[in-house]
Amino acid sequence: MKVWVLGGDGFCGWPTALHLSARGWDVTIIDDLSRRNIDNELEVQSLTPIRPMGERIAAWRELTGRTIGFVNLSLGRDFERLVQLIRDEAPDSIVHFAEQRAAPYSMKSARHKLYTVDNNLNATHHVLAAIVESGRDVHLAHLGTMGVYGYGTAGLRIPEGYLKVTVETDNGPAEQEILFPPNPGSIYHMTKTQDALLFQFYARNDRLRITDLHQGIVWGTQTEETRRDERLINRFDYDGDYGTVLNRFLMQAAVGYPLTVHGGGGQTRAFIHIQDTVRCVELALKNPPARGDRVKILNQMTESRRVRDLAALVARIAGGEVAHVANPRQEADENELIVMNDGFKALGLEPITLDDGLLGEVTEIARRYADRADLSRIPCVSAWNAERADALAKPVRAVAG
Amino acid sequence: MKVWVLGGDGFCGWPTALHLSARGWDVTIIDDLSRRNIDNELEVQSLTPIRPMGERIAAWRELTGRTIGFVNLSLGRDFERLVQLIRDEAPDSIVHFAEQRAAPYSMKSARHKLYTVDNNLNATHHVLAAIVESGRDVHLAHLGTMGVYGYGTAGLRIPEGYLKVTVETDNGPAEQEILFPPNPGSIYHMTKTQDALLFQFYARNDRLRITDLHQGIVWGTQTEETRRDERLINRFDYDGDYGTVLNRFLMQAAVGYPLTVHGGGGQTRAFIHIQDTVRCVELALKNPPARGDRVKILNQMTESRRVRDLAALVARIAGGEVAHVANPRQEADENELIVMNDGFKALGLEPITLDDGLLGEVTEIARRYADRADLSRIPCVSAWNAERADALAKPVRAVAG
Repeated sequence: MKVWVLGGDGFCGWPTALHLSARGWDVTIIDDLSRRNIDNELEVQSLTPIRPMGERIAAWRELTGRTIGFVNLSLGRDFERLVQLIRDEAPDSIVHFAEQRAAPYSMKSARHKLYTVDNNLNATHHVLAAIVESGRDVHLAHLGTMGVYGYGTAGLRIPEGYLKVTVETDNGPAEQEILFPPNPGSIYHMTKTQDALLFQFYARNDRLRITDLHQGIVWGTQTEETRRDERLINRFDYDGDYGTVLNRFLMQAAVGYPLTVHGGGGQTRAFIHIQDTVRCVELALKNPPARGDRVKILNQMTESRRVRDLAALVARIAGGEVAHVANPRQEADENELIVMNDGFKALGLEPITLDDGLLGEVTEIARRYADRADLSRIPCVSAWNAERADALAKPVRAVAG
Repeated sequence: MKVWVLGGDGFCGWPTALHLSARGWDVTIIDDLSRRNIDNELEVQSLTPIRPMGERIAAWRELTGRTIGFVNLSLGRDFERLVQLIRDEAPDSIVHFAEQRAAPYSMKSARHKLYTVDNNLNATHHVLAAIVESGRDVHLAHLGTMGVYGYGTAGLRIPEGYLKVTVETDNGPAEQEILFPPNPGSIYHMTKTQDALLFQFYARNDRLRITDLHQGIVWGTQTEETRRDERLINRFDYDGDYGTVLNRFLMQAAVGYPLTVHGGGGQTRAFIHIQDTVRCVELALKNPPARGDRVKILNQMTESRRVRDLAALVARIAGGEVAHVANPRQEADENELIVMNDGFKALGLEPITLDDGLLGEVTEIARRYADRADLSRIPCVSAWNAERADALAKPVRAVAG
């Protein structure tokens, strides 16, 4: 089976490409290396020493005998080439990670907001329109985010994409199942809710087969495959824009930097280990919707935790102080989050838990590469609006955890 | 009060600019004349002889002594200039018509789909981000569409943007008011549902004051102001891409062409006269939301009618045969549509009705300029998908009305 991994040079895309290749898929990566260019722009680099794409692919071939193809292509820009590639290569499935994926980066300035919307919407739309134009029946699996749901109502179990509601009509109450009402927390998250409207349209109008994976915050770095050789190592972001909350805590603990919790840390978030991400993607590819089905939506997460509880967990395992800093995000201080993930459970996913996996991550990655860290890059300096920027500019509140 | 009319050269924008200028607003039009360029691309022109922007503005000044400013600017392309203009000119309000607005054009080919999404989303986003960046408190009134609602549930009265629903939670049933679940019928309509997500985000995150006007299908051509001098005449589109259903019927009747009804004509649509459009826009500008309010959504329509009933009405008034042709659109053959428009009624709108206004339109515009029509441009040749394209390619079914 042929599969394309769009954005296959990134944090989720690269280990997915290796995982699928190891399991016999014929993999081609499509990527314009924009994530590496953003590293250049931000003057920061992955904590782990990631290799250039050519070296990555050559090392994989040397170790396994398997070939991964690579096409350097900007998705939103060269439509004719994309259509021709789909016709020529005839992939059975396309996994789409090729979007700007950091909320703080998307809120950094007006230019970053404009880039994120333009880049993400055009990338997704070009892929959909190109599949239609090619005339081929390709299954598209897109990496979405739990962030499309917002924080819901107290006591509401977040379903997998669709919500049953009752509405009043002239004929009495009527039940309907609707796309979950979106409440995105950043420009980045908003683009994923706009993607969702593209998917709904193309599934209905052109009967495209589409799976949308609403992923939690990914933690961890390595998978079975990326661990096989240092030349295959996955990226680990710890900076204020791209570092996800848990990986930032791990790195902070490793270098003796306070674990910086935004506000009171009462935000509840959904998490998943990178190893489970790549397993979920393969499960999704093996279980596509049928032609004419509605968009299949799966919640790709395994645990929900409060941020302050995670900080305490990391401090207990790896040492370190907890410091509460002003929250750059426009969001509630506290929220509940109860998420259904029955879809992947039914497909047989057995998750890696935070309690089991965290310590290994600290020693394997955070401590090992700590000398590569630039501590000045840790604070998040992207504020959501003028009020939050003012709060950020004030001195750190000295609240110990 | 200063107001900008984005897309002020178009079918709704031009009469809005004149209406506001006549009532004492200090008006500047921002437009890149893309609608005229699309006329060139489609090799078609307005049935009415519209004049170049310079001549339009000069005629208005000659007649009224009032000056309308004009800036030729592509909204999605020159962000710095847009921000600087907002800072320098300090408009109190911005009316945003500057989007590609034809559903059939948006479905014409892959290239037209890509253009519509890229153009509309970037235009809207640049305006929102520029208002934030300027630091000014500008009220944005956007022309949306009734098409965001889709066709709803039988017996459901379409509310003004927000829907009360009941959801099951662990604490029992909970009432929520949500953005109406979108169900757009074309790529064009879909871009308006994506715009809506931008508005929700910027109203919440940056407390922008935003009104979204969900407009029905506009009929009629002239307003009090455009009627004052032929140099001020408004455009009238009759071609298969830009001609709206009722104006196409009027023109078809005037030239003795069959009134072409798509499918059985059981589609129910919402309508509004162009004179009521410009009145509604001024009412919306005079009644903006407060800072911190949610997006204010008003249904800008006055009557709902079934397409086949409209065809019969035009045939009775102006003569002509009704011909049912294959429907290029992927949609249900029949739908109900009950729409609430309490907002504009409360603000004092007294609508022009189809029963009163149609005959004047036939004699004033359709018959008068009939010799300018290119009959080969009447059929809609943009099919929504491969199946609909096949149906279009078959000979016209000879069903008389």
